[in-house]
Amino acid sequence: MMDWEKVFATRASRMKASEIRELLKLLEQPDIISFAGGIPDAALFPKDAVSQAYAKVLGGEQATVGLQYSVSEGYKPLREWIVGQMAALGIPCKAENVLITSGSQQVLDYLGKIFLSPKDTALVTWPTYMGALGAFNAYEPTYDRLTPMSNRAAASYREDAEKAGGRVKFAYCVPEFSNPTGETMPQQDRERLLDLADELDIAVIEDAAYQSLRYDGESVPPILALDIARNGGDIDKTRTLYCGSFSKTLAPGLRVGWVVAAESVIRKLVLVKQAADLHSSTINQMVIGEVAAEVFAPQVEKVKATYSARRDRMLAALDKSMPEGVEWSKPEGGMFVWVTLPKGMDGAELLARAIADYRIAFVPGRAFHADGSGENTLRLSFSCASFEMIDEGMSRLGDLVRREMVKSAA
Amino acid sequence: MMDWEKVFATRASRMKASEIRELLKLLEQPDIISFAGGIPDAALFPKDAVSQAYAKVLGGEQATVGLQYSVSEGYKPLREWIVGQMAALGIPCKAENVLITSGSQQVLDYLGKIFLSPKDTALVTWPTYMGALGAFNAYEPTYDRLTPMSNRAAASYREDAEKAGGRVKFAYCVPEFSNPTGETMPQQDRERLLDLADELDIAVIEDAAYQSLRYDGESVPPILALDIARNGGDIDKTRTLYCGSFSKTLAPGLRVGWVVAAESVIRKLVLVKQAADLHSSTINQMVIGEVAAEVFAPQVEKVKATYSARRDRMLAALDKSMPEGVEWSKPEGGMFVWVTLPKGMDGAELLARAIADYRIAFVPGRAFHADGSGENTLRLSFSCASFEMIDEGMSRLGDLVRREMVKSAA
Repeated sequence: MMDWEKVFATRASRMKASEIRELLKLLEQPDIISFAGGIPDAALFPKDAVSQAYAKVLGGEQATVGLQYSVSEGYKPLREWIVGQMAALGIPCKAENVLITSGSQQVLDYLGKIFLSPKDTALVTWPTYMGALGAFNAYEPTYDRLTPMSNRAAASYREDAEKAGGRVKFAYCVPEFSNPTGETMPQQDRERLLDLADELDIAVIEDAAYQSLRYDGESVPPILALDIARNGGDIDKTRTLYCGSFSKTLAPGLRVGWVVAAESVIRKLVLVKQAADLHSSTINQMVIGEVAAEVFAPQVEKVKATYSARRDRMLAALDKSMPEGVEWSKPEGGMFVWVTLPKGMDGAELLARAIADYRIAFVPGRAFHADGSGENTLRLSFSCASFEMIDEGMSRLGDLVRREMVKSAA
Repeated sequence: MMDWEKVFATRASRMKASEIRELLKLLEQPDIISFAGGIPDAALFPKDAVSQAYAKVLGGEQATVGLQYSVSEGYKPLREWIVGQMAALGIPCKAENVLITSGSQQVLDYLGKIFLSPKDTALVTWPTYMGALGAFNAYEPTYDRLTPMSNRAAASYREDAEKAGGRVKFAYCVPEFSNPTGETMPQQDRERLLDLADELDIAVIEDAAYQSLRYDGESVPPILALDIARNGGDIDKTRTLYCGSFSKTLAPGLRVGWVVAAESVIRKLVLVKQAADLHSSTINQMVIGEVAAEVFAPQVEKVKATYSARRDRMLAALDKSMPEGVEWSKPEGGMFVWVTLPKGMDGAELLARAIADYRIAFVPGRAFHADGSGENTLRLSFSCASFEMIDEGMSRLGDLVRREMVKSAA
């Protein structure tokens, strides 16, 4: 009989399903009101446009192209469409600066693969996107806290990385309507982040999964746009990798994302992708290209109208239902509100009680912290919740938090 | 300006495009007769069945399921269809033993990720599938030569691995109609391989990409079937991972493959997949499931009829055109014939002359050898070649080889 543990060798093979994920798996009971899943509302998917695009591609001369192997860098017309979108964001680039991936999650895996040796340091915010930590963890890095707004010196980061046994390799962030906090990084902090990256001579990974979903407030230039401006308009001299996704605007089930960066790093990533899965689904890239060309702008407007109303409703419900001592973010876009509970309260314990006694769910904040802190925080997602669910759910959450506050005071 | 080389840290980031791949990229001129690409004939794709399946999925109640995020292990009905296919091959298993991946290439990447620390040893045949070497290379292994037919002792493999600075972690092979040789591993060798794996306590990776494509001869039980038989019928006690693919039977453009193994290793791979790309395209898994249920058996018969006739034609043309001193494999299935030239002749040099003077192409054999040997070998693919291309191409190849033999004799 095979003893697999003897053969497993790497951190990836030692990964365990987190208890929180296991707990959240239990949430499929229909009577639970869930604010846990960070997923788009399926009712908004452009189903007809997608259906028509598959029929068009498979009914035309390009059908066999869609079903055949293709190049690792991705379908050229889709890459060219992305070039147009990037230009509108202040990111002038060519198709050679774009790689198509199977969702933007895959970019994070590949970036871990090319940058991280064991004990190298990755800079991330506390909290940060849980899936980024999962992708990077396989490559056994150390994490240090990215705080662009602080004046912590580059030398201090460098020294700590050396103590950990490696070098600082990149800074990762979700600058717009962050997962999990919903907050947006101001332009001044983006500039400071680039200053720090220059001093450390490291890459900056800009996870722009939510960028299109701004509901109000002033838009801020992408970090890559600021980096290009610092480099005389030449993307090939920049250090920022911009990761984009169609999952939050069109549909995640086709698994199509992209990364935009200097051509020299894209060329490396193409080789990594070739070795790792040859290429992303040809037909899905063609279909996303068709759908984007046909309905991208109105589709984004539709999603924004729905989600912004739900955000408004959630913020109003929180105002009404939460006791004194609880704070939350006021996101200008995206899918999440971040709640900070009074000190001493534990999000994971609260979740267990929320499910057992109040039939509501959310994600405890600790899962988003590379250092395991953030006990007294939690993430609420409003993307899939009706007004009724939001009103009822926030009312129950308020009751639960009040009950726990009374208990801990006793 | 960013100096990327300073930030790159890993073997994956140091990978370079091979010169041969660059050379083969030049082959898009229409007047070249190419036997280089190891790809299926697009004319055989079940285009109508695929088109109907997308229309059915997107027109029905399951449309939003297909467009939404889904579980990392894969679409349950497709996993259950695979369970049925495996049973017919003598591999009794449950859906929990099956993970869906984005082509079987992705399994190789994930297996490198969970098994290989730098300097660990992977056992592969000389020659072996080039893409497997590419996938494993990112994890910085050493290679040792797998020769199941030899009596080399386990202790010798173990000692060499220790000298290299690690441990033997797995043996990888393509037992049926191998890429690149077209040869099939006899049952006796499969049993010896399992003996060796038992002694070394390592995993066996069975790459079964071509398994369905047998044209004649006796079928041999899959290594996993033999392993299950050794373990009282219990797949959860086995050490073999069976990697399957729809790319050679249905269509590669949807990127759907699978791996079957003991549940404990599948559970690890599910975590790896979750961190690396969340899951394979939901809609493509549903569509492949529909198409497989509808047309798999007749589709495989159609592909076999076409490819077996091309194989026959190529073997006959080689008989007619090749000079004394050249040998080649007689594959019972698959897509490839492996040619051994007289010693001293170099496949890569021959390719350059073949393109320049004879307008034909193939893949030089060295690319498939982990130790860089195999100079005097080359791979011919017959899957996409018409009878006319085969007759004309083999005639030109014979002329070229004769010319080179005369030159080297002079």
